[in-house]
Order: sequence, then C-alpha cells, then structure tokens
Amino acid sequence: MECIRKTISGLAIFETPKILRFKSKRIGITNISLQILILTYIVGYGIVWEKRYQTTCPVTSAVITKVKGVVYTNLTGHQQEVGNSSLYERIWDPTDYTFPTPGHENGGFFITTNVIITPNQTRGKCPESLNVEGAVCNADSDCPIGHSLPVGNGVFTGKCVTGQNEINKTCEIYAWCPVELDDPHIHDQRALLEGSENFTVFIKNWIEFVKFGEEYKRKNVLENANVTYIHKCIYNATTDPYCPIFRIGDIVKAARENFSEVAVRGAVFEIEIYWDCNLDRDFLEHCRPQYYFRRMDSPDSLISWNFRTAEYHEENRRTLFKTYGIKFIVKVTGQAGKFNFVPLLINLGSLLGLLGLAAMFCNFLLSSCGKNRHYYNEQKYLAVPPPDERPNDDDDSSEDKSPILADQD
Amino acid sequence: MECIRKTISGLAIFETPKILRFKSKRIGITNISLQILILTYIVGYGIVWEKRYQTTCPVTSAVITKVKGVVYTNLTGHQQEVGNSSLYERIWDPTDYTFPTPGHENGGFFITTNVIITPNQTRGKCPESLNVEGAVCNADSDCPIGHSLPVGNGVFTGKCVTGQNEINKTCEIYAWCPVELDDPHIHDQRALLEGSENFTVFIKNWIEFVKFGEEYKRKNVLENANVTYIHKCIYNATTDPYCPIFRIGDIVKAARENFSEVAVRGAVFEIEIYWDCNLDRDFLEHCRPQYYFRRMDSPDSLISWNFRTAEYHEENRRTLFKTYGIKFIVKVTGQAGKFNFVPLLINLGSLLGLLGLAAMFCNFLLSSCGKNRHYYNEQKYLAVPPPDERPNDDDDSSEDKSPILADQD
Amino acid sequence: MECIRKTISGLAIFETPKILRFKSKRIGITNISLQILILTYIVGYGIVWEKRYQTTCPVTSAVITKVKGVVYTNLTGHQQEVGNSSLYERIWDPTDYTFPTPGHENGGFFITTNVIITPNQTRGKCPESLNVEGAVCNADSDCPIGHSLPVGNGVFTGKCVTGQNEINKTCEIYAWCPVELDDPHIHDQRALLEGSENFTVFIKNWIEFVKFGEEYKRKNVLENANVTYIHKCIYNATTDPYCPIFRIGDIVKAARENFSEVAVRGAVFEIEIYWDCNLDRDFLEHCRPQYYFRRMDSPDSLISWNFRTAEYHEENRRTLFKTYGIKFIVKVTGQAGKFNFVPLLINLGSLLGLLGLAAMFCNFLLSSCGKNRHYYNEQKYLAVPPPDERPNDDDDSSEDKSPILADQD
Repeated sequence: MECIRKTISGLAIFETPKILRFKSKRIGITNISLQILILTYIVGYGIVWEKRYQTTCPVTSAVITKVKGVVYTNLTGHQQEVGNSSLYERIWDPTDYTFPTPGHENGGFFITTNVIITPNQTRGKCPESLNVEGAVCNADSDCPIGHSLPVGNGVFTGKCVTGQNEINKTCEIYAWCPVELDDPHIHDQRALLEGSENFTVFIKNWIEFVKFGEEYKRKNVLENANVTYIHKCIYNATTDPYCPIFRIGDIVKAARENFSEVAVRGAVFEIEIYWDCNLDRDFLEHCRPQYYFRRMDSPDSLISWNFRTAEYHEENRRTLFKTYGIKFIVKVTGQAGKFNFVPLLINLGSLLGLLGLAAMFCNFLLSSCGKNRHYYNEQKYLAVPPPDERPNDDDDSSEDKSPILADQD
Repeated sequence: MECIRKTISGLAIFETPKILRFKSKRIGITNISLQILILTYIVGYGIVWEKRYQTTCPVTSAVITKVKGVVYTNLTGHQQEVGNSSLYERIWDPTDYTFPTPGHENGGFFITTNVIITPNQTRGKCPESLNVEGAVCNADSDCPIGHSLPVGNGVFTGKCVTGQNEINKTCEIYAWCPVELDDPHIHDQRALLEGSENFTVFIKNWIEFVKFGEEYKRKNVLENANVTYIHKCIYNATTDPYCPIFRIGDIVKAARENFSEVAVRGAVFEIEIYWDCNLDRDFLEHCRPQYYFRRMDSPDSLISWNFRTAEYHEENRRTLFKTYGIKFIVKVTGQAGKFNFVPLLINLGSLLGLLGLAAMFCNFLLSSCGKNRHYYNEQKYLAVPPPDERPNDDDDSSEDKSPILADQD
Repeated sequence: MECIRKTISGLAIFETPKILRFKSKRIGITNISLQILILTYIVGYGIVWEKRYQTTCPVTSAVITKVKGVVYTNLTGHQQEVGNSSLYERIWDPTDYTFPTPGHENGGFFITTNVIITPNQTRGKCPESLNVEGAVCNADSDCPIGHSLPVGNGVFTGKCVTGQNEINKTCEIYAWCPVELDDPHIHDQRALLEGSENFTVFIKNWIEFVKFGEEYKRKNVLENANVTYIHKCIYNATTDPYCPIFRIGDIVKAARENFSEVAVRGAVFEIEIYWDCNLDRDFLEHCRPQYYFRRMDSPDSLISWNFRTAEYHEENRRTLFKTYGIKFIVKVTGQAGKFNFVPLLINLGSLLGLLGLAAMFCNFLLSSCGKNRHYYNEQKYLAVPPPDERPNDDDDSSEDKSPILADQD
C-alpha cells in the first residue's frame, strides 16, 4: 500500500523546464519564421505532398496481351528485288509474326517487322558465307578441322572450297546448308511488314493491393466498358485514355519515334502502366491506369535487334527466319497508399526534433552575435559552483541558496 | 598547452536545463499516460511489431516449374459432336499442352484446358469466316482490295464469294485456308482437357538474401526431404505445407474457384511463394515458404483468355490451335530482416522527438486550462527585462537579481 | 491595428529554457563523447555512408541477349555407345540449342548442354517404359483402363503386354510411341554439348531512371565502344569489365562452378547487372554496370534441371527432345540517388532527437550515481509548492517568492 502510494505520488509530479522570455522583435520573429519554414517544408512538402502519412503497398499484377492484324507482303517497291522474291509474297497473321507463343511472356510481346527467310536447310557440308569475317581462304590449311569462326555458321571440315561466288574461295563447314544470305532487301531501309503499324494489341491488366485486402482489386478495362466499346475503341491519350487497345503505330509515335525507321532494324519499347492509388479517396473513381511509352534501346545502337528462329519440318530439314522486329515490354508499376498512424508519427517525431534547430539557431544568434550577448548569457546560463565551495547544508533545497548568492546576502 | 587546457575546461561543463517540479496528480498522470501510450504505440507496434530495428533485404530467387500428367481426350459426352471429332481423340502429354517451352518462363506456366484444332492450313484464298463482323457481302464492291477487317483472318482479294454456308456470301481473303471455325464443342461449357485437374506441377524455388551473404541461401524443398518423399507428396495447406508439388485442381480450389468452370474459357492464377525471414532467429527452422493462391483476372471478364499457336509442318502448311487454358504466374516475394543499429536509432530518435508531444500537451493544459494557470505561468515563465531597464551591473550573474526582484528587496 | 500590434509584440518574445552549467570533467566529457559518438555514427554511417541525404529511384531496364557459337557433336569418347548414335552426330547452332525463341525472355536465356532425342513418335499404343515405377504387370487386371501412372508416359489401355525387353511385361498405354528411353550416354557424366563452354552471349542492357528525367539514360555498352571492339572483346572482371560479351564457361567459373559437371544434368545461374549510380557525380563516368554471377540452384538438388520439347513434323508425328542445360537469368538491379532536402531533414530531425539521449544519460549519472547527487538534484530541480500553500499574491511573478523560500526568509 505504502509502496503504491509512493509510486502514485511520484507520478503526480509534472516536470517542466524553467523558461525565460526575452523580448526581442528580431529574434522572436526569426524564430517564428524559421519554425514556420521548417513546418511548411516538412509538413507541406515532406508529409502531405509526398504522402508520408500513408503506408503504401506496391501493386500486384498480371498482364496478358493479344495482338490482332493481318498483313500481305511482297517485295514490289523495294529497290532491289531478289531471286526468291516469291518467298516473301505471303500473308502474315499473329501466329506467324508474334514471338514467343503469343501472350505468354508475362508483360511483353514481339512483332516481326522485317525478316530474312532461308527455306529448306538441311544438316550437311557447304561453303561458309562470304559475309563472315575470316571465311575466305586460299588453301585447306587456312581452315583447321573443328575450328569455328566467332560469328560463323558452322564448324570447319578442313577444306577450302569454291564459295558463293566464283571469285573467292571460302572454308567448307558442317552446318545447316545452304547458309543464310544477308538478303539485299533488308538494306533498302524499308521494312517488309511495314503494315504492322496498323496492328493492334489488347493489353489486359489485373491489379491488386494484397496488403489492403480483397476489395482493392481491379482491371484496366473500366467498369462501364461493354463488348461493343471494347471491340471498337483505340487508345488515345486525350480522347480515350482508358481504352485497353493500342495501335502499334500510336505506341511508337507516343514514344517520339518514327515507325518506318524503327521497323527496318528493330527496337525495344516499354509500355508502362502506372497505378497511383490513394485509397483514402474513392477506389474505382480515383485509382485508374496511366500509360507511358518510351523507347528503351538507343537509336544509335551498334547492333540491331534481331534473332533467328526455325520451323523444323523434318528432323533434318528446317526453314530459318532471321527476324527483326519491335519488342514491347509491358511493365506495371505503382502503389496504393492508405492513412496510417505509424508513418505519420515517425515523420512528425522527426519534425519536432527539427523544430529544435530553429531554437538552436536563435540561441546561437543571441548568445554569440547580439550586442546584448553578455546580458543574454548571464540571464540564460547559471554557473552552478562545485559543491565543496559551499557550506555543507543538507536542508537547503532551494536554488537561491547557492554559495555565490549566500555571499551576496 | 594553454589552448588545450582551455578547451578541456570548456568541455568539463555539463549544461542542463533548470527543471521545475509541479505537484499535480491530474497533469502528472496525464503526462505519464501519454508518454506510455506513445512509447507503447511506437516501440511496441512501430518498432518491435513492424521490425523497424532491422535492415531488410528483399528475396532474390529463381523458379523452375515442371508439369506432369497425361490425359486422353475425346468428344464423347459433349452435347454437340462435330464432323471431325476424331481430331480430338488423342493423348496429350506435357509437351503438347504446356506453353511456352515448358519451364522456361521464369515463374510461370500454362496448361491447356480447351482447344480448337484447324489442321492442314495453307496460304491461299478462301471466303472469310461468317463469324467475323463485316465479312458478309453482296457484291465485289463490298470487299475493297487490300482491306482487312479488325478481327478478320486475312486481306480482301476484292471478290465476294459463296461463304461457308449456302445462304450468305462473304468476302474472299488471302489467308491461311481454310479459316478456323469456332467449333461448337467450345460452347458446351465443358472443357476438352477436363482431366488436367489432376496434373501436378513441381515448383522448384531457390532463394538468397544477397546483402546478408552466402550462408542465407535455401530452397523450397526442405532439407529433410528425400527422393521417395518428393515422388509421393502433394501439397496440402494443413497436412503437407512444405511439399513443392501441387495438384492443379487444388490450386484452383485454394483460390476459391471452380475448376470445370474456369477450364472452359481459361483464367489467370497467381501462386505466391512468400518468404518472411527473421535472420535474428534460426535460418533453416524459421525461414520457410508460405504459399498463397489467387485468381488474377476477373471472372466476369469480357474476353476469354486464349491464344493461337501453330505447328508448321511445311513452309506452307500448318496446324492451327486456338488454345484456352489456365495461366499460372509464380511470384516469389518476401524479405529477410536482421538487427541493425542505424534503423533502430533513427526510429528511436524520432520517438524521443514525439515524447516532447506529451510534455507540450500537458504544458498547454496547465498554462491555458487549469484553474491555477496564472500561478503556473508565473512559476514557469520568467520575463527577462530588456537590458537597458536595469542597472548595468556586470558581476550579477544570478537570475534572482533581475530588476523586479531588486525592487522588491 | 491594435490586434496586429498585439500579435507582433507576442511574436517578439523569444522563449528559451534556463540552463544550469555544472562544472564536472567526468560528466562533461562523457556528454561530449556520447554526442560525438552518436553524431559520428548517425551522420557518418547512417547519413553520409548510406546516402540518406538522397532520394533514390530504382533502375528501369530492358535486356536482350544473343547467343553465338556452333558445335559439332558425336558420341565418340562417351563410355557406352548406343544403337542410334548417328542421331547425335550433328551440328548445333543457336536456333537449335537455345530456348525459348532466342532473346525473348526479358532477361534470360537457356543453353542446351545435354539431350536425349526420340525421333518419329506418333500417337498410338505401346508398352510403358520399364523405367516408370509401377509399369511392370503380370495380368491385364494390373492395368486398369484409363489409369495413368504419376510419372508415366500415357494412359492404360487395359492390356498387359511384352515390354521393351523379353523378361518383363508392362502395361500397354495410349501415348506418343515409341516412348522415350533413358539413353545411356546421359549417365556417362559427360555432356553431349560440352563444347557449349565456348559459346558467347551478348547481353544488351538499357537503363533509365525515370524519376530523374530523360537525361539519365544509358546502356551497358560504353560510349567509347566501336564495332571493332564489340566484335572482339570478351568480358573479364579485371582486364575488360565493361565488355558486354560473355563466354559461357567464364560465367560458370565466376560463379565458382565446374562447367563439365553442371553441363551433364543442368543448372540455373544468375547474372546480376548492378547499377549503383550517384547522380551528384558525373553520370557517364560514375554510373557503370557491375556484373555478378552466382548459381541459384543447389548442386545437391534432388532432381536435375531438364524439360521436354518437340518438333511436330506432322499433325501426328514428332521428334521429342529431353533437354538438359544451363538456364541463365539476367537480373538488372540498382538505383540512382540524388541530393534532396526532405530525406536529409527527416533523418537530421531524428538525429537531434537522439542527441537528447546523451543528455539524458549524463543527467541520470549525475542525479542517481554521482557522489554529489543530492547537491545536483537540489540545483537542477525546484519543487514548486501547490498554489494554496502560499499567500495569494497576484503581482509576484518571480520564482524566488515561492512559499518555502518565503518561510526561509
């Protein structure tokens, strides 16, 4: 009982520092201004503007894309026609021109814009391509058996044979024969599938903010969209910013690039779907996707963006495609924020600490620079003398009984 | 020497504010309670519960999946049988029904549940499908050469020809012919590969916390698992939560969906592997995967989840598959936390700032609301008079020598 | 007017606590040392070293990879030769040995190192493989119609037939026939495509820091690189750390693994491209990629890393490949930091709060442990008596007029 009473009476004491009030327009207003400045900057910008009063949760998402469009190609109009130009007179549908299996990369699709086709390759021996550096030879000794060139198509058989033209001899190689020729039409600066500019892609994006629960789940197709709308609409940043169907040419344009240029040798674009959701406001109304388009590779890239695929018609017979095209990476970013006390308090605590800065600065001004600094220091600071310099008087508990004062009495 | 002595004697001073002790049960206890509240909330919840005394490192991971299971399909039992129903009597193994190349998407796999097969397509001319909006025509003028419909299969040749039935004429197109027919069995609300419910997937997941070093590296197959266990076990949230082999039907069920429904038109599911590792405790014992399953697309989606692939048997002959199925996205999330002084101190510093709040509040109560506020203010605040209002007395360094007091003496 | 004057005169007051100065070498120096320690730790380590004075932006990137190299394989030298060893005498180019469509996974490529080829499979009936657990049977009743084994190749037809050898009977299955045989050469501990050690991969990586604007955009090919350099260079951590072309064998070695070992049964490696960019310094000079290589799967993995693919030569004829190989995951990590006031101030505010800790600690020492603690407490604390214990004297505004003192006078 006694103990509890003591504890309570101990708690019943409120400790607070003795405060001096100095009358000084200059310092008072400096202090207030500094405090307001700090408050405004930290609360206004740091906390309210940057929403540091919220806990955030990054977006969780799934993306599926579906490309639509067909194009009929031929080499008519290209400057140089090649022998097998009939090979390029064909129809292309999404199955033909998208890689890999359409819609399967989580966030990404590829559209072929230019292609070199090498049909009917079989495994065997044939002369290396003249385009490969180091392929030209004079004698068999130039072609060591088993050796292969860094960018070569095969492995040397050890023979030097008549190459693709009558002038130069090249090393014979084990390879898929005949080897691919760099088709002249690729150098025309005009892409074979130029029409792919008009293809469209339907990007379906579902998002969720797992930390905040199941009710915060939505998709980039707005709630009021119906089938008719979805079948007709085309995304437009100003007139139709929530249509999930994009024209390829528009994407390229929005990234400030020229389609016919990038189509020739390929490029990499990023489609960013950005969700910035403030869950303190209405979810469906204020949590909407924004689309950004940018080119990821640099236009002056040393090496163009192409790759080779093949259709294996038989175990030992294939058609090789050297494919140039535009790769689109769909990236979903963003976060949701929701009011929460912990981040607010932690940031506010920091702020209160900072307010001390203003007082420190004014104190420094008064005690070091002001013309009344001596007077200020006298008033503010009290040098307590060492205990041995005073009469050992146990019952004296008041500050004004300090030795100096005693002397003065 | 002199200088060093001075500096040391300067350092030998400890400055501390003069503290007043007011006896007031109400305020004292309010103050203490506020402080305890703030302390408990920030330390208990903000620091201990949210582990803000730790530095964290996100998980680095690799995922490989392998699907197992075979199914034999036929159209028996489906309401409407189609002409080429023998086409659908076949065995399906993982190579046939998974896309893309099995196990190759980092974190993701697809299982075919329904399919429309169009064999022996070749490039040529044929009438457009009646299902395509705008394909029906009366005269050649309805089919401008080179035009293609938004969801059409090809490019108009300029002719209007007898279509797939005898009633309607449709535009002739350059396309892969014959064009795909929307097979009636897809509308039966029963998926062709319903048996895929029993397929299993082995998800191998290796993780690492790069920032904390090589020793924190593990996999989702527990250390005590042996080959026999791995060949037999099936994941079960309650009885076998660490088995890395999942039955497809179980995943769908865990996400609260009905397999036979989603199988007909496809869906997207997410398998989240969550690692929440407290490295201040035993790594192998307490850092274990948790699995969460959720459906990502919305069931009322306007458009079903399908895509087309083809097998190119010859350069100009393919089999087209319109594939419906379930896409699983494997996402590895989580982080490891380890005790570290910097975040602890930064958060504690914030806290100490906040404790000032309690004092500020009590001070406000005492100085503005209490019935003894005048007395309180008198005691707490000392108005220091301007220096010119007092006798210029340089040796007076004690506070009680202020002019007012002098007057009273 | 009156009101404004009053407000201004209110602002013209600077409040500051009364400070006592105790002369004590021990405590003074303890206090200073503690403050310096806290300052050094937080400012030096927490703020300067960990760059908490910067806002950061994670890297946004795109990755494209291109594998080069050809290899000629045969089974000569492998311990046991198999019947169809001619099947393995062939040339492999990137199109043959990389999966999926080369360069298409955003950040990732796969190189085949070992393979089992099963040509000319057709859908039909054949005996289950002896390697499958549970395939052996004595009578038809052991093979229930429609049943399939967990790791089996097909669905039971209901018959028990003579298996692959004359000794054991196995269940007949609907499957792609003949079923795959576990080729003996895989057990030789020597990979078929051992030569893939010399393949090279060109990793093109473009990065951007979206938050900081378009000017902070670059690629992992340095600005001064020309075509000749790019065609010749090979990455080397010490001599050529900015060459974007990597030898496969070097990557495996840098991850401290043995290529010929991992090639036999496959592995998963991670290539991390780390960009740590301080935008307060020169961007092009100081923002450069660093490459890290590590093995992600554990070498003692229970199950090897393989998968099956097929080439469908006709609708009902395929070649099956069981492929073992090395999967490389390219991960781009990093961030850019730029000086910003908000994080600096928030962290500084925290720091000022912490400095209070030093004072609190010294105060505790003086008031509880020092031999002069009574004297210290007397000086520091002033117990203000309750207002009713004193004469109600409204004009007394000085602290030394408290009742206790009055009594002592």
